[in-house]
Amino acid sequence: MTTPFSDAKAVLEANQAFYKAFESLDIQRMEGVWLHSDEIRCVHPGWALLSGWDEVMQSWARIFENSALMQLRISDADVQVSADLAWVVCTENITSVVGSNVSQFQVQATNVFARRKGQWRIMHHHGSPIGG
Amino acid sequence: MTTPFSDAKAVLEANQAFYKAFESLDIQRMEGVWLHSDEIRCVHPGWALLSGWDEVMQSWARIFENSALMQLRISDADVQVSADLAWVVCTENITSVVGSNVSQFQVQATNVFARRKGQWRIMHHHGSPIGG
Repeated sequence: MTTPFSDAKAVLEANQAFYKAFESLDIQRMEGVWLHSDEIRCVHPGWALLSGWDEVMQSWARIFENSALMQLRISDADVQVSADLAWVVCTENITSVVGSNVSQFQVQATNVFARRKGQWRIMHHHGSPIGG
Repeated sequence: MTTPFSDAKAVLEANQAFYKAFESLDIQRMEGVWLHSDEIRCVHPGWALLSGWDEVMQSWARIFENSALMQLRISDADVQVSADLAWVVCTENITSVVGSNVSQFQVQATNVFARRKGQWRIMHHHGSPIGG
């Protein structure tokens, strides 16, 4: 699959915007990076599939409410683009504060993006625990 | 995203072929359903990312060598297609025999497919444990 450099760059920026929204713990910012559609899907580490706008956004609201601080460093991001669909695999290196507990862990992620009116939006996030 | 019914059907058949190859525990059959490319990626439940043909196929060979029997029933398969790229999310309901241990568990999967010369081939499999 030949991915133009400019497309790959734009998708990686959308991937970065998703993680910045994640770190912000701001549900409105998170809503801004997703495709506004009931076609969106999300699998959080250890969770079953969530489908559609309401289910996915409620899950982020719940995660944000229960997190005092979330720091995400992304490594090994790898992107492939075909027309208006793209997918990224990357490793999330997470430092999370929930209550008084600080934890550090890694999550392996697959993210799917769709291009609408020139903008790449995330439409599927699948995160899974590494190890454990 | 508007997915023609015929495309969705062909992708779901490729998804089914992938799971039939998985059940067969036959590495040659598994090789036959993947895109022959170093662009392929694979995340087994709890594993880190595997990249490229050799790494991905060695992992399947290892899983097959260590499995006496594997039965996969797929539920909630959901497909989206854009041009020559497609992704499926589905739940794998697995009965596995390793040594004398029989276990039953569910895996949430995201599978990405590419169309080459009219044939859909899997190019990324991401499986993650549900619960636990």
